[in-house]
Amino acid sequence: MDSAALHEEIDSFFESAPPLKDSSKVTDKLKQFIEFNSPSSGEGRGRRVVCVTSGGTTVPLEQRCVRYIDNFSSGNRGAASTEYFIKAGYAVIFLYRRGTCQPYCRSLPEDPLLECFEIADDVDIQVRQPHSEAVKGAIRDHHAAVTGGLLLKLPFTTIFEYLQMLRIIALSMRSLGPHAMFYLAAAVSDFYVPWKSMAEHKIQSASGPLDMRLMQVPKMLLVLRTEWTPMAFCISFKLETDSKILLEKASTALKKYKMHSVVANELLTRKEEVIVVTSGGNILVHRDRTRTGSDVEDPLVELLVDRHSTYIKTTSTGSLSKQEVLDIH
Amino acid sequence: MDSAALHEEIDSFFESAPPLKDSSKVTDKLKQFIEFNSPSSGEGRGRRVVCVTSGGTTVPLEQRCVRYIDNFSSGNRGAASTEYFIKAGYAVIFLYRRGTCQPYCRSLPEDPLLECFEIADDVDIQVRQPHSEAVKGAIRDHHAAVTGGLLLKLPFTTIFEYLQMLRIIALSMRSLGPHAMFYLAAAVSDFYVPWKSMAEHKIQSASGPLDMRLMQVPKMLLVLRTEWTPMAFCISFKLETDSKILLEKASTALKKYKMHSVVANELLTRKEEVIVVTSGGNILVHRDRTRTGSDVEDPLVELLVDRHSTYIKTTSTGSLSKQEVLDIH
Repeated sequence: MDSAALHEEIDSFFESAPPLKDSSKVTDKLKQFIEFNSPSSGEGRGRRVVCVTSGGTTVPLEQRCVRYIDNFSSGNRGAASTEYFIKAGYAVIFLYRRGTCQPYCRSLPEDPLLECFEIADDVDIQVRQPHSEAVKGAIRDHHAAVTGGLLLKLPFTTIFEYLQMLRIIALSMRSLGPHAMFYLAAAVSDFYVPWKSMAEHKIQSASGPLDMRLMQVPKMLLVLRTEWTPMAFCISFKLETDSKILLEKASTALKKYKMHSVVANELLTRKEEVIVVTSGGNILVHRDRTRTGSDVEDPLVELLVDRHSTYIKTTSTGSLSKQEVLDIH
Repeated sequence: MDSAALHEEIDSFFESAPPLKDSSKVTDKLKQFIEFNSPSSGEGRGRRVVCVTSGGTTVPLEQRCVRYIDNFSSGNRGAASTEYFIKAGYAVIFLYRRGTCQPYCRSLPEDPLLECFEIADDVDIQVRQPHSEAVKGAIRDHHAAVTGGLLLKLPFTTIFEYLQMLRIIALSMRSLGPHAMFYLAAAVSDFYVPWKSMAEHKIQSASGPLDMRLMQVPKMLLVLRTEWTPMAFCISFKLETDSKILLEKASTALKKYKMHSVVANELLTRKEEVIVVTSGGNILVHRDRTRTGSDVEDPLVELLVDRHSTYIKTTSTGSLSKQEVLDIH
């Protein structure tokens, strides 16, 4: 598809989208967060900033939304990666699906409030063993990251909210140049129903089967990479349930969207290993199986941070050795 | 549709469904819970038992589920009603969608663990004002209900899990005769993709629009009412976004599925008022607007409990006055 057609598709997608609620509030929060961590800020923190997207988007099938199509994602990958990026000294903009896994809360049960706490002698709340350490850690680390200006959490639900917020974030991260990174782990819908062509009311189940036609969501990655934040280091993800087509689709995405890396993962093994696909070749990354409870996100983030460093060096110096070229690509 | 055709549809739905995980565990829990509360049990509690269904079901579009259709429901109605049923002396089987609103937790923020708690002097967890009372109340009342044998919580996600569990629950409540009640507040999918005809792998977004054909979910209400638990008092819900067709669809459901009442609610006003549709006429129920924070579920449950009492009386005596006939219908 040529660029003009793509821009037309993108424009009509955003025109058809319901306006984002308090977008100005989001913009202000972002501005503050980025200034606080920006290398150019007087405060001289000079932190790199990564936007981690996490969880799945929904596609409403009715304007007064009763039914929608949802993309499955626990948000565990995004939450875990956020923790490792913060550990590596990054400030993280966590663009997450409401209700999905939160950073520092991965080891907690499904319903922590009701499962981890009890009332002692009818008055005081106390944490139940064996959850005590996990709960304390979650509350402490989460608050430390937020109050320390290292973690900004922005929730979304629909594909419309997600892409509108991603654009706002990208435009405000532009000022960071190569210090900005995108780590696009969210499970984004490929198809949607244009808002205007959407049934206003609940689809009736009169009789017989229901036939639906969904349009393709325009591929925003290329525009993010080349126009919204042309200097940012961009990592996208490719999830498939069929390993046979996974790597091929990942390297297609790498070229098509000019990503710096594409992380290929298969639904069944995604917690054990991933393959980082780059134009220089593929790197298998797996979790440290000698340590129980170790995360694949630990070595994955380490690898990407390392490549981001090289990327920053080269874009700032402009020149780089043959080895460095190989390292980035 | 004639009964034979319906039974064929239902059989093929259950045959096509993936087998329910630990269904025997569910059956045991139910058996225990119902015996504990049964009027015929030696312990002589003689509580009525209501099955409250809550939240929306999902319809997988792929066998290795990446995408699915979801029915929106916060689960607030079911959670609130559960509290009022327990207050009215009922034992509640709460069949709820994972992640939806839980009884006694309605007044808490979206992410209670991270919003309601803080670490005092790096060691102890303490509840933040102003959440203190809400959090304590939630933990105390929830544990009291569960440990007191008044609340059994059973989670579901897909339409397949929901209907298989509903059948198991109905069959185990049969022994309660007229003391059993169904309060079917869950938002159940009208359409589904038969498991066998489902794509095994993630649907590819090659190019062009995606066309989907969904089959109608067979109407189980009639079978629940007439075969699974013929003596139970059955209340179903009808949600519409279009008030013009709401009452008509509710009274159709009343006759078609032989419900004792259908609660008609409109998406935008459902927290303010509902209309209880019975063969004897329609009753408008609205929340007590003189009290801030009052729930429409309070008078709604009161009304239904009252009608359930009359129903039990009549079915046990067999005879009833003209007035009573009018009361039930």
